[in-house]
Amino acid sequence: MSASDLEVLWAGQPVSVEPLTAEAFKAFGDVIEASDSAQHFTINQGFAERFHQLAHVDLTQDGGQPTISIFKARAQPLPLQLSMLEKHPFGSQAFMPLSGDAYLVVVALGGDTPDMTTLKCFSATAQQGVNYAKGTWHHPLLALQDGDFLVVDRAGPAGELNCVEFALDALHLKINS
Amino acid sequence: MSASDLEVLWAGQPVSVEPLTAEAFKAFGDVIEASDSAQHFTINQGFAERFHQLAHVDLTQDGGQPTISIFKARAQPLPLQLSMLEKHPFGSQAFMPLSGDAYLVVVALGGDTPDMTTLKCFSATAQQGVNYAKGTWHHPLLALQDGDFLVVDRAGPAGELNCVEFALDALHLKINS
Repeated sequence: MSASDLEVLWAGQPVSVEPLTAEAFKAFGDVIEASDSAQHFTINQGFAERFHQLAHVDLTQDGGQPTISIFKARAQPLPLQLSMLEKHPFGSQAFMPLSGDAYLVVVALGGDTPDMTTLKCFSATAQQGVNYAKGTWHHPLLALQDGDFLVVDRAGPAGELNCVEFALDALHLKINS
Repeated sequence: MSASDLEVLWAGQPVSVEPLTAEAFKAFGDVIEASDSAQHFTINQGFAERFHQLAHVDLTQDGGQPTISIFKARAQPLPLQLSMLEKHPFGSQAFMPLSGDAYLVVVALGGDTPDMTTLKCFSATAQQGVNYAKGTWHHPLLALQDGDFLVVDRAGPAGELNCVEFALDALHLKINS
């Protein structure tokens, strides 16, 4: 299944599936990849090139701490109806694929609710991670194959509600193969 | 090249190459892996299992911030003489392999200098990351194949010296194939 074969529809209208690039994604966060355009320099006596500060990790307001987790994702069966978007008001959230598979990224701008006129669907390669900026509306992980992702997000104070969901119950967002 | 085929010598004496486990590594930091013994729970309407808080990310003292980078590592040629260890006094440092290859982890306890009687060499699988606890003596990345690693470490204030090196100039640490 290649992402370029997918048809995405919002309220019956097609949504283009765009290649994930730093420029196209910048309103939503960062693309984590070792690209020549990133700041990079040689370390470890020549045995590594460091592609430096690829994401704005924004997790420490109001007593939050960064944490590292692994998500074991199950492939989403197609066709798929997306029923919600979510956002994390107190912190960024980064995903990096560990299993060598492409995946989809669905995001929108907005404040208390997503502005669905800004909806974007990106096709990420297995060499690209994403870091959602704090408060960015996004769909949870959309893996097309079973696979693992490293996640860098927030461990907040006890009782903090750092996930707001918005139901897409009337006008479904559909992904067809 | 399998890590189990390697011979590691410190001052002419063999150092065993141990499988990397959370228990064996706990004096040095965390092993980042989706193991059944980690806290885990189902999220994303059943489409992901979150293996939660796998590392103690310790990066924010004295104005530090977490940052995400990618190291493109070159394979170390064998036989190899290791000439130094280093430590980061102000923060933890996490490495997660992205390229599906095993690698080596060399660590020691100690304060201002490494205590070489505590030297350990671990063989990490491609599904295991490591998070060096703040101040842990370690050798820089020892990849056995060219490959990428996601790194979560510290962006400190300008001018901060967060890397201390210790030269192993008299009694070399050697890794033979």
